[in-house]
Amino acid sequence: MAYKRKDLLGMKDLSKEEILYLLDTAQQFTEINERDVKKVPTLKGKTVINLFFEPSTRTRTSFEIAGKRLSADTINFTSSSSSTTKGETLIDTVKNMESMHSDIFVVRHAYSGSVKFIAEHTDAKVINAGDGLNEHPTQALLDMLTIRQSKGRLEGLEVAIIGDITHSRVARSDVWAMTKLGVNVRLFGPTTMIPKHSEVFGCRVCKSMHEAVEGADVIIMLRIQRERQGKLLIPSTKEYAKYFGLTKDKLTLAKPDALVMHPGPINRGVELMSNVADGDQSGVLRQVSNGVAVRMAALYILGIGNNKGGMDENAS
Amino acid sequence: MAYKRKDLLGMKDLSKEEILYLLDTAQQFTEINERDVKKVPTLKGKTVINLFFEPSTRTRTSFEIAGKRLSADTINFTSSSSSTTKGETLIDTVKNMESMHSDIFVVRHAYSGSVKFIAEHTDAKVINAGDGLNEHPTQALLDMLTIRQSKGRLEGLEVAIIGDITHSRVARSDVWAMTKLGVNVRLFGPTTMIPKHSEVFGCRVCKSMHEAVEGADVIIMLRIQRERQGKLLIPSTKEYAKYFGLTKDKLTLAKPDALVMHPGPINRGVELMSNVADGDQSGVLRQVSNGVAVRMAALYILGIGNNKGGMDENAS
Amino acid sequence: MAYKRKDLLGMKDLSKEEILYLLDTAQQFTEINERDVKKVPTLKGKTVINLFFEPSTRTRTSFEIAGKRLSADTINFTSSSSSTTKGETLIDTVKNMESMHSDIFVVRHAYSGSVKFIAEHTDAKVINAGDGLNEHPTQALLDMLTIRQSKGRLEGLEVAIIGDITHSRVARSDVWAMTKLGVNVRLFGPTTMIPKHSEVFGCRVCKSMHEAVEGADVIIMLRIQRERQGKLLIPSTKEYAKYFGLTKDKLTLAKPDALVMHPGPINRGVELMSNVADGDQSGVLRQVSNGVAVRMAALYILGIGNNKGGMDENAS
Repeated sequence: MAYKRKDLLGMKDLSKEEILYLLDTAQQFTEINERDVKKVPTLKGKTVINLFFEPSTRTRTSFEIAGKRLSADTINFTSSSSSTTKGETLIDTVKNMESMHSDIFVVRHAYSGSVKFIAEHTDAKVINAGDGLNEHPTQALLDMLTIRQSKGRLEGLEVAIIGDITHSRVARSDVWAMTKLGVNVRLFGPTTMIPKHSEVFGCRVCKSMHEAVEGADVIIMLRIQRERQGKLLIPSTKEYAKYFGLTKDKLTLAKPDALVMHPGPINRGVELMSNVADGDQSGVLRQVSNGVAVRMAALYILGIGNNKGGMDENAS
Repeated sequence: MAYKRKDLLGMKDLSKEEILYLLDTAQQFTEINERDVKKVPTLKGKTVINLFFEPSTRTRTSFEIAGKRLSADTINFTSSSSSTTKGETLIDTVKNMESMHSDIFVVRHAYSGSVKFIAEHTDAKVINAGDGLNEHPTQALLDMLTIRQSKGRLEGLEVAIIGDITHSRVARSDVWAMTKLGVNVRLFGPTTMIPKHSEVFGCRVCKSMHEAVEGADVIIMLRIQRERQGKLLIPSTKEYAKYFGLTKDKLTLAKPDALVMHPGPINRGVELMSNVADGDQSGVLRQVSNGVAVRMAALYILGIGNNKGGMDENAS
Repeated sequence: MAYKRKDLLGMKDLSKEEILYLLDTAQQFTEINERDVKKVPTLKGKTVINLFFEPSTRTRTSFEIAGKRLSADTINFTSSSSSTTKGETLIDTVKNMESMHSDIFVVRHAYSGSVKFIAEHTDAKVINAGDGLNEHPTQALLDMLTIRQSKGRLEGLEVAIIGDITHSRVARSDVWAMTKLGVNVRLFGPTTMIPKHSEVFGCRVCKSMHEAVEGADVIIMLRIQRERQGKLLIPSTKEYAKYFGLTKDKLTLAKPDALVMHPGPINRGVELMSNVADGDQSGVLRQVSNGVAVRMAALYILGIGNNKGGMDENAS
């Protein structure tokens, strides 16, 4: 197997081969998801804990569906009702869950680096479902899978990521994945929302929406996330839409078959106009479908690590 | 199959034949629920999402149990923790869940008509679990099933519905079902809580508790739902009990074997006295049992629509 | 079978033989939990409801994992979203859940005696997951199992329980179990937190930490639970740690191989120092592992009572 790590923490540390292996496995799971009976017994008898220290219904649901389609026992654990409110440390919570013979933790946490910290302190496999401003690797994988399905390749594509790059773990994971896979990345957004030294990571920082969109194969629009921006001065919704929103007009600057993506949830009329979000070139819902396949792939690859017989396991 | 619709949205649109087909199927599931092993593999590999935009533990639990007894993967999604709080539109939330290859949505929503609106915008099957003041079709079906089990028939029965008819989606669904099935419906309650033109729908509006109960085969008592009544002037609890509550004394006016029902949760001592709720003529708990069977029937009928092989599917 | 009761409500009423039967069964389940495929079909088709009227993620998760590993349909019902907020009585809620053909209720409630009250009003099997200040029997069982695994026996052991005994249902259940099993119990804590007449129940009330720890085979440290103490005057955290906390130094007074336990979650640096909690003599995480096995045993023993064929049931 091309992926031998205990965990899936981020795109930054992965090799091109590891990323491609994850994508190829996910591609196979897209076919299982198209079936009438969308279920395989691969992870039967395994325990997957969705350990969410930050609320997220979409990502949690996607992982829950993925776990159940692999026949794992899937448990939701959210911090609002957890012992952490009783003063327990994060690692104590994790060691407790591990002691229940859990196999995989799917972890979301508000602090960057916290998921890696958890992974270092547990023998269970850990999948990062988003940590602070750091990474959201399964989102990057579903983005790559969606692009590859649409374009037939990744290498050499021109992909624009537009919006609040600084506060987006999606953008960070996407950039790491794309630079490894030979994708040419363009960034654009309000100047306060573009990280300094982005060029160092091989990205082209654009000066206008025009420059960012022109000739692009793929345009990834990001969500304005007011909850992450603290006291930073941000433009009004109307101004944002005018200068940084993707309209049908602006889209004509891209390649004729350019793919439009968004990690969701969409602020319609702000970063993405409805006729683009719902238009022929939109890959937004395909991204969501691929999200389940990517998470099945991640759970499968990590879960069978110590369960070689899992595929042959008799039903019960 | 006698039921060919994509969705189950309300009693209003169904034919007598469709309602009877749902009841006959539910009757079969009551037998599975009496078994030691209350589980069939019928919906294995199907994904059922309980999409509750209004809190409800009872109905959600009933659907969750029904889904699991059919071996479906059953996922709870509640709005309090959902992306709708991040400004996402209702339809975007639904399209997202659909894109995860969900098969059936069980939807509860505070706004009348919202569930139909959802059903029109998704390819997934939709079951209405209560929409505003509009309909609650599985409650009507479980009421019909309970009555038919007790009386051996529906046609020609005298059924009284007593309480806040105006704000009750249960009453609305019951009236639609009963008028189609040949049941004679009597309505009684505070005058502000009886819809105008009730006679148009074939109901007899009674002027006293005495008139409503006298000679009835079945009495359905409704819950006072202060949360739905806004600023409407309502009687005090004590007054309500005196004029509109069902006591043992008043029950003697009905047929000797009259069945007493209530959709729950009961306000004991208000609309229903405890010695009636717990008495020999009470069908309240049988209603709850039948609720699971009715929901299994609805999930089964909609779920096998594109899954003819489901019954033959090997276990895993 | 050595356990013929309908319910598992507390240690107080059980015989030594019943407790040992539960422990022996749990010991077998510890082996299933070590497997790659941690799942048996024993309770397939059974419905287990986690009926939590008081929040608890750990215990609920432990029971949920236990139920799923036995292949039961496991449903979470928490009071915050329940009908009890609509004025429904406790028994009405329980009878409702029972009417859905539930087999086992796992109940936590803030009031002492409430779980027994529920058990008397339902035909479903009931497991007490903690009721007020009364009992927490599965915690006592996992404590006994952990001690027996470590020491090879229970009879004649010297066990110290240190902390807030008065407000601890864990301590109460432990004391009932240990006095039946021939364990010698020592109690120590702030004088306001030691029940009067503890000696009547065969416990030795110690006057100092030194006296409590000296020569002990096992030391069970309890959590300071400010939420249960009302307006009682309690020492500051710093004072508590000094006089009642277990340090490495104080631990040297116990037998060299003494086992240190804690029901969790730990207040590190208060009742238990980190180098003790994480040290070689700590059984804290083994307790958590055993918790799942004990809960599987309880669910299994109660669940197969009316399901003799469960073990032979074919998979689906």
